[in-house]
Amino acid sequence: MGKTPVITVPVQKIMASGSQHTTDLLAAEEPLEIRVGYGPAHDRGQKSISVTMRTPGNDFELALGFLFTEGIIEQASDITQIRYCTELNTKENLENIVRAELGETVQIDFDKLSRNFYTTSSCGVCGKASIESVKTHCRYFSGNKLLNLPAILLHSLPGQLRGQQTLFEHTGGIHACALFDTKGNLLLMREDVGRHNALDKLIGAAIGKELVPLNHHMLLLSGRASFELLQKAAMAGVRVVCAIGTPSSLAVQTAKEFDITLIGFLRNDRFNIYSSSKTIIIC
Amino acid sequence: MGKTPVITVPVQKIMASGSQHTTDLLAAEEPLEIRVGYGPAHDRGQKSISVTMRTPGNDFELALGFLFTEGIIEQASDITQIRYCTELNTKENLENIVRAELGETVQIDFDKLSRNFYTTSSCGVCGKASIESVKTHCRYFSGNKLLNLPAILLHSLPGQLRGQQTLFEHTGGIHACALFDTKGNLLLMREDVGRHNALDKLIGAAIGKELVPLNHHMLLLSGRASFELLQKAAMAGVRVVCAIGTPSSLAVQTAKEFDITLIGFLRNDRFNIYSSSKTIIIC
Repeated sequence: MGKTPVITVPVQKIMASGSQHTTDLLAAEEPLEIRVGYGPAHDRGQKSISVTMRTPGNDFELALGFLFTEGIIEQASDITQIRYCTELNTKENLENIVRAELGETVQIDFDKLSRNFYTTSSCGVCGKASIESVKTHCRYFSGNKLLNLPAILLHSLPGQLRGQQTLFEHTGGIHACALFDTKGNLLLMREDVGRHNALDKLIGAAIGKELVPLNHHMLLLSGRASFELLQKAAMAGVRVVCAIGTPSSLAVQTAKEFDITLIGFLRNDRFNIYSSSKTIIIC
Repeated sequence: MGKTPVITVPVQKIMASGSQHTTDLLAAEEPLEIRVGYGPAHDRGQKSISVTMRTPGNDFELALGFLFTEGIIEQASDITQIRYCTELNTKENLENIVRAELGETVQIDFDKLSRNFYTTSSCGVCGKASIESVKTHCRYFSGNKLLNLPAILLHSLPGQLRGQQTLFEHTGGIHACALFDTKGNLLLMREDVGRHNALDKLIGAAIGKELVPLNHHMLLLSGRASFELLQKAAMAGVRVVCAIGTPSSLAVQTAKEFDITLIGFLRNDRFNIYSSSKTIIIC
């Protein structure tokens, strides 16, 4: 029996008409530790890569997506298996530690893993350096075929996302992202209390379905677009990122550097284009 | 000339009535590296503690708040000075690295700093362990005097926050938090693209004004309440946390453990009480 993504809690509701003791559904938040190792037959140790606060569910996709979008692995086949660790198998710990087994021939510099995309020892600390750091990891940054996207198709995306967002519907407090094909069909949707986790789950699922690089897809974010989300999108080869909220300055810079079309404030009747890919035509 | 928190970018606005090339204001996002050391006169090395994506502005408050709410320092006097590093003083890097100088007698185990509150080697990985880990760092977790808070006073807080939120007004895309006294007077407000940064800036500013522990204050969060925000509030001794959005399951658990009153969905005419402090009466 796995952990649940939604938890019922008692709540006291205070309204103009009086107060009421009832229950409310909240998005679950629990730590997930991601470890990598070389499998029991080749015990060359393991390394704890990250602890993230996430909503339980799709944990293996989250681990796979995270390892890929952070440049730790290059492709799905670098991982032979992902499983829950059973070393600390108390009821509370269970399903909060996942371990990804690396293929025998996969070389990972464990020392490098303590760094992150925001900074490296050589390139300083600034937006430009952060983008440069993504470029050194990114495999899919190259020209692509011309794509025509009608505005009316883009307007339809938020409604489709909301229609699928079951956890948000219950809790009102969770981020989501969705992957669409260029006809506007929703292919995948994932939710999480952390927006970066929602995107890692989505990309992990897309890797599992062999859809990456996502050259012929559109990504929709339920909230704002930050650098981190554009970094992950770039790593997966996404060419069109739409956000219902606004982007940050660095998200726009990153989109421009990776030739990504970045759309913000996407609504039924309007949107803003912050970065235009040379190969995407909005018509 | 410092970095600006808001950046003007070109944008193409697509509306039912047609399209328009104009400009838009976006929240700036840049990395900030926080280092600690022992000052030039006592060069015992330095340690890079964290790189966070933040909106430039109030960087020293951010560093001070972060070091305090993460349990790295115990009080403001542990730090003798905070300054920008000048080692990498290119135009892009400038003001993206701060260094906090520790007092000579302050002992910090640099090895421990690579861990975080979510997990320690001894206590496993789960929500309960995360809360236990905060408890071991928290100095202000103790009984307090009885406080009466009228509901009408709570209803007034979001309007006051919105009135002060200048960056949000311009960009529509930034988190905020505000500190109020128990009469409902707004004392401090800080904004950032990262909600944890906004709270660190606020708590750093409160430390500078010698307001911490915040036993007689109310904290208002512009969005959702996560574990991390409740952790930081608990570290600063906050007894009343109000959020305009919903809390996560672990935020509620953390509030209960630290006897914090946690209010969600705070509006002009209603709110939900998810955790009730024994010493706070909502009337």
